[in-house]
Amino acid sequence: MLENKNTSRTDISSMGEFGLIDHLTKVFTIEHSSTIRGIGDDAAVLELKNQQVVTTDLLVEGVHFDMSYMPLKHLGYKAVVVNVSDVYAMNAIPSQITVSIAVSNRFPVEALEELYEGINAAVKQYNVDVVGGDTTSSTSGLIISITAIGSAKKEEIVYRSNAKENDLLVVSGDLGAAYLGLQILERERQVFQVNPNAQPDLEPYSYLIERQLKPEARKDIPKLLKDLGVLPTSMIDISDGLSSEVIHLCKQSKVGCTVYEDKIPLDPQVITTCEEFNMESTTIAMNGGEDYELLFTISMEDFPKIKGNPNFSVIGHMNKENEGAHLVTRANTKIPIVARGWNSLKEND
Amino acid sequence: MLENKNTSRTDISSMGEFGLIDHLTKVFTIEHSSTIRGIGDDAAVLELKNQQVVTTDLLVEGVHFDMSYMPLKHLGYKAVVVNVSDVYAMNAIPSQITVSIAVSNRFPVEALEELYEGINAAVKQYNVDVVGGDTTSSTSGLIISITAIGSAKKEEIVYRSNAKENDLLVVSGDLGAAYLGLQILERERQVFQVNPNAQPDLEPYSYLIERQLKPEARKDIPKLLKDLGVLPTSMIDISDGLSSEVIHLCKQSKVGCTVYEDKIPLDPQVITTCEEFNMESTTIAMNGGEDYELLFTISMEDFPKIKGNPNFSVIGHMNKENEGAHLVTRANTKIPIVARGWNSLKEND
Repeated sequence: MLENKNTSRTDISSMGEFGLIDHLTKVFTIEHSSTIRGIGDDAAVLELKNQQVVTTDLLVEGVHFDMSYMPLKHLGYKAVVVNVSDVYAMNAIPSQITVSIAVSNRFPVEALEELYEGINAAVKQYNVDVVGGDTTSSTSGLIISITAIGSAKKEEIVYRSNAKENDLLVVSGDLGAAYLGLQILERERQVFQVNPNAQPDLEPYSYLIERQLKPEARKDIPKLLKDLGVLPTSMIDISDGLSSEVIHLCKQSKVGCTVYEDKIPLDPQVITTCEEFNMESTTIAMNGGEDYELLFTISMEDFPKIKGNPNFSVIGHMNKENEGAHLVTRANTKIPIVARGWNSLKEND
Repeated sequence: MLENKNTSRTDISSMGEFGLIDHLTKVFTIEHSSTIRGIGDDAAVLELKNQQVVTTDLLVEGVHFDMSYMPLKHLGYKAVVVNVSDVYAMNAIPSQITVSIAVSNRFPVEALEELYEGINAAVKQYNVDVVGGDTTSSTSGLIISITAIGSAKKEEIVYRSNAKENDLLVVSGDLGAAYLGLQILERERQVFQVNPNAQPDLEPYSYLIERQLKPEARKDIPKLLKDLGVLPTSMIDISDGLSSEVIHLCKQSKVGCTVYEDKIPLDPQVITTCEEFNMESTTIAMNGGEDYELLFTISMEDFPKIKGNPNFSVIGHMNKENEGAHLVTRANTKIPIVARGWNSLKEND
């Protein structure tokens, strides 16, 4: 709630459940012809052709976000991003979302307005209609549950399970920045607790912090791949970390994989900040998570179509299943890839 | 957790997030040909024809349910029921759901297994596939977020907004029992706190308690109406109470309504228990909520098709909008209907 310190405070109980829902959702407009009925009936009514994709995420205060450094507007934005990212990872186009929140009375209406402003900004950015949801009280904290729906032609949908031996492993953008952004914010929070007058210079970390607080889903990638005439054989978004997602692709496609350390795309801020923190940048890129880049495999014959494209890095290739998943280091040693993705169910993890 | 006192206790953190999801969701099977891909990819893939309906509900411990008298199996069942009920209220057939839960570490794996057993029982009863979800930790308590998806032909979908003047107002089943069931359970909980050895005789309230703990959605009604050749002009399910739902229909259809007190269907247990509690049965039926019956309007010419059918009670008719919504009492006085449905955002309400 960093952004909202001096504004007025309206108690949410003063509006009643229906009043609050009406108030918060009036910012949303219906843009898609496939939305026949949005908010306001027992259920939304859609008319999506072809095949539909559905994905859902639950974000819990104190587990997935910390209100002391996550402004509510950013939180609302990110909550939408993590869901539409899953739709893009199917090579589909998102068109509708539902948004449910449970919120304790310590939040004033103004705080929820900020949250919904962020949701609405993402809704515009990703061109989805908010067609339903639920708003209720919680005994503690804030919980956001979003379901995203999209569609694609049957033959265009890309699963995790069709990668083949010798396919190339490709990733969009760069990796590790979101995790480092979280470390920076966590450090600043601790500094602030000791000395509330400290004025941190966050400029050297601006990209990292933006990747953590305002991540974007790669809505450009499905379109770009289509324009290039490339249909990935498998695809997944990077939410838990490269290691974890590589293992998902291997397991579900029944293949092995070799990733080359020197091919992993890193932003210069990731490299310098890792040096400052005395961290291994490869470890961060492999296990950091929350990058929301797309990881996919393509047939070798499609390589010329993406070669040299600044949006993509070829970081490895798929093998026979019994060869397992490995990282080949710069020193040319081969180490097994182990999923160490962020695990919200383990304490202190 | 009444049902599970002497079993072993496995800490949820011992399984890890993926392990726990795999463990809990392995009970679910895919039954619908419209489910192309269920759990296990970035998103589920469906192939629903015609129009799709989508609805979502968030249930929060301490707000929507109290674990001291709600066994987890029943809770899982009810969480599905409230969602599919919304699909039936559109005159559509549910086919898929997603299930997300946030749970604190005080719940052992065995408790979650019980919850999922209840979910699975409802899934079988209502013939829906579980195609996705999210499982995460919470800082306190249990939160369940379910999204239900179904479909219907465009011309069969029934909205809240098409009731016409002179249409008949019809309700399925009987009203008020679920609310009274909650009162009984609450009373017993207080008795138990004073005297843990008290052996309550709940037999006289069995129907009421069942309606509260194990409500059913009226999946038979859309089919029955179709067989009878009746397409309602508007429909809604009764979750917040008859008063509240009548007002929704009036507001969205821009009509008024007259409800006759002596036509409101009451179970004998509702009548005797209201006498015992010194409550007005009409007040309970109008405002109790959680009955999950269907309230709908039909054209007068369809009256012969439902006349005498034990599933339906004609309780009133629609008027001009400017006449408002009224209840005509047994004493033949006319009192305005006011929505006093259960409001989870008001404290102590």
